[in-house]
This record gives sequence, C-alpha cells and structure tokens, in this order.
Amino acid sequence: MIKIGIVGGTGYTGVELLRLLAQHPQAEIVAITSRGDAGTMVADMYPSLRGRVGLRFEDPAKANLAGCDVVFFATPNGIAMQQAPALLDAGVRVIDLAADFRIKDIAEWEKWYGMTHACPAWVERAVYGLPEINREQIRSARLIANPGCYPTAVQLGFMPLIKAGLVDINSLIADVKSGVSGAGRKAETHILFSEASDNFKAYGVAGHRHLPEVRQGLAGMAGAAVGLTFVPHLTPMIRGIHATLYAKIRSEADFQMLFEQAYAGEYFVDVLPPKSHPETRSVRSSNTCRIAVHRPQGGDTLVVLSVIDNLVKGAAGQAVQNMNLMFGLEETTGLCQLPLLP
Amino acid sequence: MIKIGIVGGTGYTGVELLRLLAQHPQAEIVAITSRGDAGTMVADMYPSLRGRVGLRFEDPAKANLAGCDVVFFATPNGIAMQQAPALLDAGVRVIDLAADFRIKDIAEWEKWYGMTHACPAWVERAVYGLPEINREQIRSARLIANPGCYPTAVQLGFMPLIKAGLVDINSLIADVKSGVSGAGRKAETHILFSEASDNFKAYGVAGHRHLPEVRQGLAGMAGAAVGLTFVPHLTPMIRGIHATLYAKIRSEADFQMLFEQAYAGEYFVDVLPPKSHPETRSVRSSNTCRIAVHRPQGGDTLVVLSVIDNLVKGAAGQAVQNMNLMFGLEETTGLCQLPLLP
Amino acid sequence: MIKIGIVGGTGYTGVELLRLLAQHPQAEIVAITSRGDAGTMVADMYPSLRGRVGLRFEDPAKANLAGCDVVFFATPNGIAMQQAPALLDAGVRVIDLAADFRIKDIAEWEKWYGMTHACPAWVERAVYGLPEINREQIRSARLIANPGCYPTAVQLGFMPLIKAGLVDINSLIADVKSGVSGAGRKAETHILFSEASDNFKAYGVAGHRHLPEVRQGLAGMAGAAVGLTFVPHLTPMIRGIHATLYAKIRSEADFQMLFEQAYAGEYFVDVLPPKSHPETRSVRSSNTCRIAVHRPQGGDTLVVLSVIDNLVKGAAGQAVQNMNLMFGLEETTGLCQLPLLP
Amino acid sequence: MIKIGIVGGTGYTGVELLRLLAQHPQAEIVAITSRGDAGTMVADMYPSLRGRVGLRFEDPAKANLAGCDVVFFATPNGIAMQQAPALLDAGVRVIDLAADFRIKDIAEWEKWYGMTHACPAWVERAVYGLPEINREQIRSARLIANPGCYPTAVQLGFMPLIKAGLVDINSLIADVKSGVSGAGRKAETHILFSEASDNFKAYGVAGHRHLPEVRQGLAGMAGAAVGLTFVPHLTPMIRGIHATLYAKIRSEADFQMLFEQAYAGEYFVDVLPPKSHPETRSVRSSNTCRIAVHRPQGGDTLVVLSVIDNLVKGAAGQAVQNMNLMFGLEETTGLCQLPLLP
Repeated sequence: MIKIGIVGGTGYTGVELLRLLAQHPQAEIVAITSRGDAGTMVADMYPSLRGRVGLRFEDPAKANLAGCDVVFFATPNGIAMQQAPALLDAGVRVIDLAADFRIKDIAEWEKWYGMTHACPAWVERAVYGLPEINREQIRSARLIANPGCYPTAVQLGFMPLIKAGLVDINSLIADVKSGVSGAGRKAETHILFSEASDNFKAYGVAGHRHLPEVRQGLAGMAGAAVGLTFVPHLTPMIRGIHATLYAKIRSEADFQMLFEQAYAGEYFVDVLPPKSHPETRSVRSSNTCRIAVHRPQGGDTLVVLSVIDNLVKGAAGQAVQNMNLMFGLEETTGLCQLPLLP
Repeated sequence: MIKIGIVGGTGYTGVELLRLLAQHPQAEIVAITSRGDAGTMVADMYPSLRGRVGLRFEDPAKANLAGCDVVFFATPNGIAMQQAPALLDAGVRVIDLAADFRIKDIAEWEKWYGMTHACPAWVERAVYGLPEINREQIRSARLIANPGCYPTAVQLGFMPLIKAGLVDINSLIADVKSGVSGAGRKAETHILFSEASDNFKAYGVAGHRHLPEVRQGLAGMAGAAVGLTFVPHLTPMIRGIHATLYAKIRSEADFQMLFEQAYAGEYFVDVLPPKSHPETRSVRSSNTCRIAVHRPQGGDTLVVLSVIDNLVKGAAGQAVQNMNLMFGLEETTGLCQLPLLP
Repeated sequence: MIKIGIVGGTGYTGVELLRLLAQHPQAEIVAITSRGDAGTMVADMYPSLRGRVGLRFEDPAKANLAGCDVVFFATPNGIAMQQAPALLDAGVRVIDLAADFRIKDIAEWEKWYGMTHACPAWVERAVYGLPEINREQIRSARLIANPGCYPTAVQLGFMPLIKAGLVDINSLIADVKSGVSGAGRKAETHILFSEASDNFKAYGVAGHRHLPEVRQGLAGMAGAAVGLTFVPHLTPMIRGIHATLYAKIRSEADFQMLFEQAYAGEYFVDVLPPKSHPETRSVRSSNTCRIAVHRPQGGDTLVVLSVIDNLVKGAAGQAVQNMNLMFGLEETTGLCQLPLLP
Repeated sequence: MIKIGIVGGTGYTGVELLRLLAQHPQAEIVAITSRGDAGTMVADMYPSLRGRVGLRFEDPAKANLAGCDVVFFATPNGIAMQQAPALLDAGVRVIDLAADFRIKDIAEWEKWYGMTHACPAWVERAVYGLPEINREQIRSARLIANPGCYPTAVQLGFMPLIKAGLVDINSLIADVKSGVSGAGRKAETHILFSEASDNFKAYGVAGHRHLPEVRQGLAGMAGAAVGLTFVPHLTPMIRGIHATLYAKIRSEADFQMLFEQAYAGEYFVDVLPPKSHPETRSVRSSNTCRIAVHRPQGGDTLVVLSVIDNLVKGAAGQAVQNMNLMFGLEETTGLCQLPLLP
C-alpha cells in the first residue's frame, strides 16, 4: 500500500482525490490537512464519503506528512512551493495539483501568478505530469507538476497535429469552455448559482494563466514558439471542459488516421469516429479524454473537439495516473470507473 | 460468472444497468435487446461505454435470453408480463424493473395501469425486491418485482415508524420530488430542457401510479390499510429523489435512535445525525439511501427526509442488489462506488 | 412623479426594484445607496440596466433620502429598524423589504432574528403589505412591512380555506420549495453553482424565520393560533417558489368555487381550473400568484399548490404594488409585464 | 392598431411573439393558427398568457389571415414559401421567422434545406430583416426574411470590421454557443433535460444551415466572398447566444472606437467598454445585442464577443422591430422592456 498525504483537502480537487483514492486498491490515505477545518471529520464536510473515509482534517503543522510515500498538494497556487521542498528533501514524492511547478520560465511564472517563486530549483527538476507526453520521465519523477484542466484538453487536442508538423503554429486558436467547478469551491459572487446558471460568458480574454502553460507545452511539441489565441468561457454545468481548437492546414494528411494512430496505445484518450461530436457528459466522472477531428467544408481549417472532466483527467484523476506511474503500478489502477451518463 | 440478459436496454435504467454490470466482477452480459435499435452498437448510442461494452443491441426475437441465468427487464410497463413467463418456465430468473409484478391486487393494478394483466399467477409468486424489507424471500426468488423509485425512498423513510406503531397511519403525507431522468428517455415535450429547467411543478396530484405501490408496502408493515396523501413534483436536476414525509406521532419514542437501530445493519441505508438535511447529490450515482428524522418545534408531527438516486437505489442499483442476493453473492458486490460530488 | 429612494440596492431585491421602477410610468428614482459600492455606476454592476439607469450608488450618509416621497429598504434584516424612523419622522413613507417590521410580537421577533429591536413603536404602526389581505390599511400606511416570499405564497394559498373555517387549523403543513435567488446575492458556499445545481435538499426544518411570520398571518385569518409544520427546500432554479399545502377538511364545500370567488377581484391572483398544476415558470418575472386546489382520491386532505416569483410577488413586485396603493395609483401600474416563458 | 396574424403559434418563437405583441401598444392580434392544436385556447397551452391573451388557435384554412395588415410565419422551414404568396398578393405584408426567404441563391438554399423552393420570385423581392444593416429597405418591404439567431449575433459582431476592410475576410472564425430553446419545442431526444443539462457539445461542425446565411451577409458587407469557419455548440441554458468571433487584423485602427461609432445610433446594439465580457443573461428577454471587442496580448487576432437572446433579437423581437419599421412606428415601440437578471 502506498501511504498518501493530501494537503488542502477541502476544495473540489481535494474531495475528488478522496473519492478516487478511497476506491484505489493500493492507496492508503494517512493524512489530510486543512488549516481552516482542522478537527472536522472529512465525512461531515462531504457526506458523500460517510462510511468510507474515517479521517479528520488535520492541522498542516501537526500532520505526519513526512511519513508518507507521496503527498498531493490540492492547495491554492503558492502553497506547494513553500512546503514541498522540505518533504522532497525528506524523500517524499510530491504531486502538485496547483500551478507552482508548471512553468519552466520563472519570470514568466512570476508575471502571471504575481508572486516571487520560492524554489526555482525545484521547478527545474519538476516533471510536467501529462502522461501521454511525458510518461517515461514521470515514472522516475520525484516532483510532478500536474497539468491544468484547460491545458490538458488543449494539448491532447493539438498534439498529433503539431508533432506531425502539419499545421501553422503561428495562428492556433483555442476556444475553451469550462464547467463551474473549474473555478473551485471559493465563496465568490460570480460563481453563485443565481449568477452562473442560465448564463454563458467569456472571461479572461485579455490573458488567462493557462495560456503560458499551454504555449509552453505546444512549443515543446513544435520545437519552436507558437502563436495561440486562448479564449475561456464559463458554461452552466458542474463538470466538464470542451475545447474547440482551430488550426490552419499546412500539409495534407489523413487527419483522422493521424489522431487514431497517435493515441492507439493510450487507454485514457479515445479518438471518436469521423463526424463525431464528443459531449462532456460522455466523460463525466472518468479519466478519459475524447477527441474528434473535423475539416468543415473541406476547407483549410481543421477543427478539433476535445472533452475531459476537469476534476478527473483535468486534475485529480490525472494526479492518480501520475502516482500509478511513479510507483510502478498499472497506469489505470483505480481509474477504470465508467462515466456517469445521464 | 452470472450470464445476464437485458431486455430493453436503450432507456436510462438500461444504460445504468450496463454501467453497473460492466463493472461488476461476477457479471457477464451476454445479450441486450432493443426492438427499435437492433444492430446498433451499444457504445454508439452511449459513448460513455466506448471501449468497455462491445455488445450490439439484438432483436428480442433472436436473442438467446433463455440461455441466461437472469434476465433484467428495463422495458415499459406491460412488456415483462408478456415475455417473462416463458423465460421463467425455462428456468431463467427474472428481475423486472417496470411495474408489472409490483401490485398483488390484480384489479388495483389493472385500474392504475389501464391494461389487463397477462399473467396474474406470476404476480402472486413474484417477490417485491426491497431487500431492507424482504431480504430472505429475495434470496430464493425466481421473479423479482423491482420497486419504483418513489416507493423505495418513501417506504425506507416510513418503515421504522410504522413497524414500531408509533405514528397515525391514517394521515401519512409523502411530498416527493424527482429529478427529470425519472420520466425516462422518451421524447416528450414536458421534459425538454427548455420546459423543465429553471422550473418546478407538481404533477399527478389526483393520482400517481406509485401511490398504490407505496400503500401496499406501508400496509404490509402496518398490518392494516393506511391513509396516504402522495404528491409528486418535478425538479430541475437529472438524478435524485427527495422524499419529505410527514406523520403524526401517536406514541413517544427516541425517534433518532429508532431509525439508527432499524438500519444499523443495512449497508445501503445511512441514518444521518440529528438536525441533518440529506442532499440528493450526496447519493448521486450510488446505491445509498440517506435519511434524517426531525421533530420541528417539538410538536406532534415528525418530518422524515429520505434521498436516493432514482436510477440506482431507485432502479438499476437495487436490481443488482437483488441479483446479488439471488445468486448468493455478497450483497454489496459491484455496488460500492462512491457518490459523485460535486 | 413619485420620488423614490432605495437603500441597499446591490442585492437581488434591489436590482429587481430597479428593473420594475425604471419601467414604472410614475416612478422617479432619485437615490440608491450602497455602503460598499458607493461611487459605482449601477449599470456597471448590472449591465442589464445599461442605457436605462444612469444613477451611481451613493453613500447612505450622503444620499438625500429625506427628500424622497418613499424609500424602499432592500437591506439585510436589522438595518431598516435603525434608519427608517428618522425618515418616517421627516414624513417620508417607507417600504421595508426585510423582516424588521413583520412580526408584531417583539419578543418573538427578537428570538427568531437574534437582535434587540430598535423601534418597537413603529412595529405596531407598520402595516403588513399583503394587499390581498390588507388593501385598505395599505392605502393609508406610512410604513409597510413587505411580506417574505414564502409567507406570500403560503398565506395566499391557505387564506380562502382558513377564512371560511373549513379546515383543521391545528395540523396545517406547508412544504415549500424555493429557487436559489431566495438566498440572496451573498457569497456563500452552499449557494455556489457547483453546490446547488443538480441537487435538492431541505433546510431549516427545525425552524425557519418565515414560520412565525406565516403563523401570525394565518392566525389573523383564523382568529386563533394555528398549528403549522413548515419545511423549506432549495431547488436548482433561479427564481420561483412552489408551495405545496396540506389541510384536513373539517366541513365540506366546493373548494374550487371557494378559491375562485375568494380571488375573483384580484388581478394578481389567478386560480387555475380543476386538476391544474401551476408551474413556477408560468409566473417568472411577473407579479402573479397562480393557485390550484386538489382533493386527491376524494379523501379528507386538501392539497393547494401556489406559485410565485420570489423576487416579484415575493419581494420587489409586491413592494411596488404597495407603493401604488399608498400613492393612489392604479394598483397594477408598472406591474403588467407578461411572464417570461420559456 | 395594426391587425396581426400569426401562423404556427405553438413553438417558442410563436409564444414569444405573443408575449411581445400582447404588450405592444399598436398591435392587435386577430388570428393565430395551428394545424394540430386548432380549438385550443392559447392560454391553456401557455398559462403565462392567462388573462391577457383570449384567443384560440385556429385552423389555418379557416383563419382570416387575408384581413390582416401583417402576418408572421413562426412555422418550420418550407411552410411560408407555400402560403405567403397568396397573402402577399392580397396586399398583406409578411414577416417570415423561418429561413424560406433568407438565401438569395436558390440553388444554395435548396442544397442546405433539402427542398425545392416554391416561390423563387418572392425570394428576390424579400428584404433581409436586419435593421442595423437594411433599415431603409425594411421600411418599404412587403416581405421580410427575418434573420436566424446565430446570423444576427455573428453579423452584428463582424460588421464594423468587415465594412471598414480592416480584417482578413478569408479566415474568419465564428465559434457560437446557443441555449437549448434555439432548437425549438420539438419532442426530440437530444434536447431532453436529462440529455442537455450538465453537458456541453458542438454539433453540425460539418455544416450548419446558418453558415450560408452568415456567409451571404458578410459577403454583402465585404463586397466579396468570405472564408468562414462556423462551429455551433449547445449549452445548458434556455435562452441566449454567445458568439465568439476571431479575425486576423490586416490594417491597424482603434477597434474600440470603430465599434462605438458604428453602433452609436443603434438603440438595440450596445458596445461595452474595453475589457468587458458580455453575459447572455444581460440581454435575457430583451431585444438588445451587447458586443465587446478584444485584442488579446496585443497580437494580430481580434476577438469579438456578441450576445443576444435568441428568441428576441434572434427571432420574435427582431420581427417586431421589423414590423415597427414597416408600419412607420417608432422602431423601439413595445421593445423597451429591461432584461431579466437574475
């Protein structure tokens, strides 16, 4: 059994980690921390876990995280960079679900996140935890930067095209839509039910923190800087990301076959048949990414549709997938539950 | 492995059976039928099952249902009573998720369902599949009448009070609210998104088919006829039933303790602490019923709150629970997945 | 033109007052205050009002409220009782949309609201602003206690029965369901989209602040204390209240005709034909209450269904209706807009 | 008073016409037809209209449409082209809310709509009813082709850029999102509540009928054919369209000022301040289009956000706006109601 600690378990990625790990045959959650809710039974905050998770939230200062094999940080940005180094030095492996270790360019990170980075050295050593790209490095990683939700959907959607060099990398467009749980469980007015339901809007068009993360990932595939317009939207559903991606064709190919071959061996990426339109609910609660590729009217613009559950493949599920790789388990262990539909 | 057939698998209870059985360690689905969609891959209709369910819908006339150990009917009312007898005679066990075998009084059934019953003899032999009431009979049953969704929530909520004889059984009230999936996957105007969302209404106040089913169940507990007012409502959510139950106290007792003791050994019934309000999402996708009992203002009226997922404990999950009992498996096999929250 | 001030205009009842008054032919909004948002253009906070409402939120201390003909308090409970007396003494009429002046029994109010009342004398002089009950008193009132949303729906639903003395007033039950906007625009976790959507729950079963208000109103109709069980629920829609009311028949009558006659002259109360089920959306955005009366199975329990838009007939619309009466206008002025459906 | 007939009043554009016209000071609805529901009171089908619309649906064959000043067709595609010519010949003006007269190229229309056109001559004489483009022609038109919902949002969003010749018209992208009411009130499975809620998907990526309509409109502005990728999505809300438009800059300009000046005199088009994100709810129930223009990261791609209520500015409201122009009324008559928020 893998001894697991979770730092900051009261948010949606935290409770989703609990849901997945409580059903994982090799996982033993030994500590879960929360500064504000220390002492509270986890199952009192999340009645869905009653009878299955018997832990209490612990004060982070008192929890025996150093005795864990791996610690997940499900904290706001800026926490893991403070606390992870000590654990890493003690030999604990760390998976950060926030953004602290995702951007290799420290100055870029500091610009977008508005903080001075506390441990640039660990950024360099961190492995970006998108297994479909970095599987081998993840296996031996000590520190994983778990990808953002939008970046997961967008990178998996663009990857085959960019790696094959078939599209113009200077004019990529990602029009992305997220369910409201992507904004977390913070008490903020704009994500109240009465504000966010029966409504649709774009946000952060001037610049969203996932833009540099996606750009870095796509540049890595292309071997060159990319031009990307990234427009996020809030859509009135709880879970789900739908990325609609646009790319200009530079060289002809059988794009359907390209995608099918690129993901032929990937358990968690499902390329749909031609003319398909993946629905977010077809991956709800599962670690799967479903992708369809279109060439409308036979023109020169490709449209790729990519859907994930933002809390699973976009956060907690991918983190467990990374853990499985790091500990030599079958990559799919604990992650084979079928999507919930309807 | 238990060889399983599903008749009428294209509706919501059908796909939910598939979701549960595809993950059940002792289940082997060998046939699934649909008159209208014969030949279609199940996963083409339900992309959530891609890669996990490789079956095609078969014409009911051609499917080898007689070779199954058990056949589930996820059909409209009136189908199972036509087709089940032949299977039963062939030694196949049958679990009917519709209402054909639920009401023992044939005249009553015919009045509410507007059909002549095709096999009254099997109604008599059928066992009502609410394990928390009928567990022993279910183990040896050949034909299970799987309870309705409302009746499950209402009977589990009233049972401890009625069995203990503590409330007036002549003035029971069940004010029940259902998510829209309870109306099935029929293309009907009133359950369109634009009709049912951002809206709330009662329906069937003059008389709903679940009323005689609940009355029969409660009368069985009481050993006498009961007076019940039953008012169903449609609420804009996909899954979930919330029953708000009212009963006049006739004899004093520690009602919280009564409920806790009544369900102490039940894995799928969770009595919440005093002052709790169960949310439907706390049981979403799970086979659990959560119950709270209140006595507002210390008055003479008890209020019991009972929630289930209508497609799981209210339909497919309970059917699998019954199957487990019938085949000597651990009752919880394949049914331990944690609720999906948020 | 009636010169109008609004205190606390940033919440949902505030913006709804603005929507209605900006379209009212006799209304001139001269001041709107907000402590936290003083200086902000109203239309910057509520873009729906762009081009139509040119006001800025003002600091309450600086706004010329004393120069108004009437001031609406759309504030949290406990504010109006502090600020209204000075305005009233200056000859300004006041309509309080909060609860400060609703309960005549000061001790009862203080128990439920957890505060010492600041001006009991004005409670005595306040008129409860439910025009269908108190129309004549409202015309000459200086201070209106605008009813709560649940109390409006429940009182209008029970009134004909209780006034006629036809039901047992000791065992009344009100099972009430509210859209989420009823909880206001406060940034609180439980009303986040990801918490409140696709979910249904009861709350406040032990005791809700609208219980004493409803009890007082029903007692006034009955001429005696009433026994009432009051169970509120949160339902995933923005606007709307659906009250399902239960009463035991004591004397026979033509209950349909009773309701039709009781509300024959009321523009804002619509009694539906027999066997109807009013939907909340049928009154969305309008000041109408729709009511249906049922006697299921011909038994001894009546079921009354009553729906309103909680922000209109349950708050801002009723306040404008009261203003119209107070200033000698046609009662329906500015309130005839048709419901928005779908 | 303008005497008005409505053909096909049972769908969402029909009931929305009724809502608007019943409140229009110059409108007198004299006939409303429905083949399937002839004889039914309008208010029995739409209780929101009780007390305000006293008409019955009439058989189209019997209704006195020829006695009307104007007839609205709120019918499925292919009906108006059959029935409008006789009315037009009788001197009745016609506003078709369907697509029969929108596309000038008959062959193109027949390809997309799969029918032979019944009256090409009237297509030539029809005026495309987008007042912000065609106001003068509309005033004298006898037959109006009322624009589609997507085309309205997309054309208003692109118009200033294309008319000014500032963007590359060969690589335009319209990523558009619609509420479910855009699919109409047909009983179809994919728009059931349980299918469409808590879900997001693209559809019709290979080709949607609004594509040729938008292309025709944009080509008219550009004076040349345009290259457009058009991707529609279904989003779980009742009303609203959000168009996210992408265009490559060819010539520099102050784009904010360009938009503000282009729409300076337009009552129903509201250009938001820089950095704004219009929400669909900010126009819910109103005839307004709100637009914001962005240039992310100062790059060479402009992003225009354009929102409308698909049933108002995208259908019935625009139809009434056209009627006002045709009959010499103030263009805003009956269309000034404020949006419903929340």
